[in-house]
Amino acid sequence: MVDITHKSNTHRIAIAEATVVFGSAETAQAIRENRVPKGDVFEMSRAAGLLGIKKTPDLLPDCHPLPIEAASVNYELSDAQIRVEVRVETIYKTGVEVEAMHGASVVALNLYDMLKPIDKGIEIRNIRLLEKRGGKSDIHRN
Amino acid sequence: MVDITHKSNTHRIAIAEATVVFGSAETAQAIRENRVPKGDVFEMSRAAGLLGIKKTPDLLPDCHPLPIEAASVNYELSDAQIRVEVRVETIYKTGVEVEAMHGASVVALNLYDMLKPIDKGIEIRNIRLLEKRGGKSDIHRN
Amino acid sequence: MVDITHKSNTHRIAIAEATVVFGSAETAQAIRENRVPKGDVFEMSRAAGLLGIKKTPDLLPDCHPLPIEAASVNYELSDAQIRVEVRVETIYKTGVEVEAMHGASVVALNLYDMLKPIDKGIEIRNIRLLEKRGGKSDIHRN
Amino acid sequence: MVDITHKSNTHRIAIAEATVVFGSAETAQAIRENRVPKGDVFEMSRAAGLLGIKKTPDLLPDCHPLPIEAASVNYELSDAQIRVEVRVETIYKTGVEVEAMHGASVVALNLYDMLKPIDKGIEIRNIRLLEKRGGKSDIHRN
Amino acid sequence: MVDITHKSNTHRIAIAEATVVFGSAETAQAIRENRVPKGDVFEMSRAAGLLGIKKTPDLLPDCHPLPIEAASVNYELSDAQIRVEVRVETIYKTGVEVEAMHGASVVALNLYDMLKPIDKGIEIRNIRLLEKRGGKSDIHRN
Amino acid sequence: MVDITHKSNTHRIAIAEATVVFGSAETAQAIRENRVPKGDVFEMSRAAGLLGIKKTPDLLPDCHPLPIEAASVNYELSDAQIRVEVRVETIYKTGVEVEAMHGASVVALNLYDMLKPIDKGIEIRNIRLLEKRGGKSDIHRN
Repeated sequence: MVDITHKSNTHRIAIAEATVVFGSAETAQAIRENRVPKGDVFEMSRAAGLLGIKKTPDLLPDCHPLPIEAASVNYELSDAQIRVEVRVETIYKTGVEVEAMHGASVVALNLYDMLKPIDKGIEIRNIRLLEKRGGKSDIHRN
Repeated sequence: MVDITHKSNTHRIAIAEATVVFGSAETAQAIRENRVPKGDVFEMSRAAGLLGIKKTPDLLPDCHPLPIEAASVNYELSDAQIRVEVRVETIYKTGVEVEAMHGASVVALNLYDMLKPIDKGIEIRNIRLLEKRGGKSDIHRN
Repeated sequence: MVDITHKSNTHRIAIAEATVVFGSAETAQAIRENRVPKGDVFEMSRAAGLLGIKKTPDLLPDCHPLPIEAASVNYELSDAQIRVEVRVETIYKTGVEVEAMHGASVVALNLYDMLKPIDKGIEIRNIRLLEKRGGKSDIHRN
Repeated sequence: MVDITHKSNTHRIAIAEATVVFGSAETAQAIRENRVPKGDVFEMSRAAGLLGIKKTPDLLPDCHPLPIEAASVNYELSDAQIRVEVRVETIYKTGVEVEAMHGASVVALNLYDMLKPIDKGIEIRNIRLLEKRGGKSDIHRN
Repeated sequence: MVDITHKSNTHRIAIAEATVVFGSAETAQAIRENRVPKGDVFEMSRAAGLLGIKKTPDLLPDCHPLPIEAASVNYELSDAQIRVEVRVETIYKTGVEVEAMHGASVVALNLYDMLKPIDKGIEIRNIRLLEKRGGKSDIHRN
Repeated sequence: MVDITHKSNTHRIAIAEATVVFGSAETAQAIRENRVPKGDVFEMSRAAGLLGIKKTPDLLPDCHPLPIEAASVNYELSDAQIRVEVRVETIYKTGVEVEAMHGASVVALNLYDMLKPIDKGIEIRNIRLLEKRGGKSDIHRN
């Protein structure tokens, strides 16, 4: 695990996204009409994602444990897919990109897990970092 | 969590893949020449992935805990990307698709985490189920 | 941990309840009108509870790890309180009472955590086993 | 998870209690005479409770991970019940009420788990916050 | 993780030991007179060890998750050391040696952690398998 | 858990070692020639050890959660044994000795787990603290 003892605290923000692409045109409709048998996919996946963000250093060997000071999960549902956006903030010596990416991945996997009884063709696409601020170099993508 | 008390054990296999796409043409070279500062990306990520497979029910609320009886992580490195393939087997009442997908996602995230010091443009693409056998319906994709 | 090697599998069901008593008469109204700032208390707490049920042997030293084969969380909201009911099933050598009690306790704590910004007087009352079937002796309470 | 990036560290203390009510008059006697088959209920449950306090953000989605800087578990045994008192301290941006409540709940559940072989009527009552200091508003109950 | 899908269940037992050697002649006396400031070292370490046994597949990548069906922790205190013996049983396709070894190691570490305020010279020696039964080959050491 | 609220942050370093002694003269050779069937023992065990260091407060009741700011795992392979050295650093109010000792123990157990298919006589010896700096008293051993 990289030595960060000499670094100083800065306010760091990372935003990651994941896309869950439906296999069937009915899936978006079932979600909108709240007819998914396993329950409310957005709220359950938010809970899983918030817990997942905090478990990142438990899963990735080189990842420093750090104080997550803000986290949120947002969704954009269209006919073909759900776009998941996860934002994580800390005031610490190292960034939260991997935490945001891991959160996005857990949310996407939970959407997959809850939707697979009604849609066998679901895929997770493009888990990627959208934005990163507060470290040596900032990143901002469209 | 869906009631599976009435189901019977069958031998179930699931294979999932994830793709880690490089942002820089140098990344594949650095991996081949074992010059990644954080160490051996394939072995470390395999360890993370095997642990991640077992932690799936800890992260996804509706996922049943089950006996993982075989698991492996394989890699295909090309100039532009690493393709990760995770295979999981159980003899149980429910399948291991989500476990395989979660394993592939953790391996991909760990590759991302180890490679980001040398490549800022890495993305994770297409976490998807390739194969599923032993349940009510089989799936096989190319 | 008690030796259960000689016992045989039976279908076991346990139902536990917990009661979350409000300190303010406004709380039930805020929940009904979906005005709790931290989000949907029922869905988020269900996710936490399902994960909590599975983590029971991780928290209680003498508790056997076992295959949770069905689990559900139900709510009754009245003006003064939420009654939480958690049902857990397994086919195994030992029962799931403690898992159901732990699930009810985690759900209640999460309701407390989400509601405390709007109600400082919340208390958790009466975490208890309502029903237990499939072991040496059955329990059924009203 | 609520944004606490702008808050400043203060020394925070929370004390929570839980009550484990016996179903049988013999139970207190068995504890006093150290005749509980599963072992020393107070020491084992203290260990479970201290670990439980630290696992709170792992179980509750909205709970911030924070540095637990002091924690203790105390007991009052009477003929009819055990009163559990859990005290947690931190120097951080947010309080430790839920940690103290979760600790009290895990201690109570472990007492239940260890005592149920000798007492089928045990219930957990009144998990509640007794005291909270160091945040915007203090709480003190009798 | 090695493929065990084709194997059949047998009753498996493993016993491992660890030795905690004191740096000071006073330590055994402090334990006997119950004067260790951090509390009852045997009961607290038993709780930690039982939880540790169950967490083995969470820590070791190649270790199969399996149903721990019996576990116990025993101690022999002499003037110079504590000998820890951990016994684990399962009825499953693979053995519990590593679980017993991990349990012994966690018990020893917790003894170390609780005793270090009164003895700076403590060491852990000889974590080893004493006995293993129920698999292809049995082991028995003196 | 000992009260550390009044202490101040210092840079703390701890180095612990564990020794894995082979039962067979062939084992060192198999490692050198990369012929261990379970894979690269050094890289996999490093991953397990880094995760294990971070899980220490999850396993030991009295251990404070703290920010691990640097960690490394090194090996010395000779014909008869592997010596494992784990170094951990933090800037915090309490030291990381137990974290380093736990890391060394997890690395040693994972070496044991990976090597036992080819060597039935492996033992773990001498998990001990080599060095400790930054607290009230320093320790340095040869």
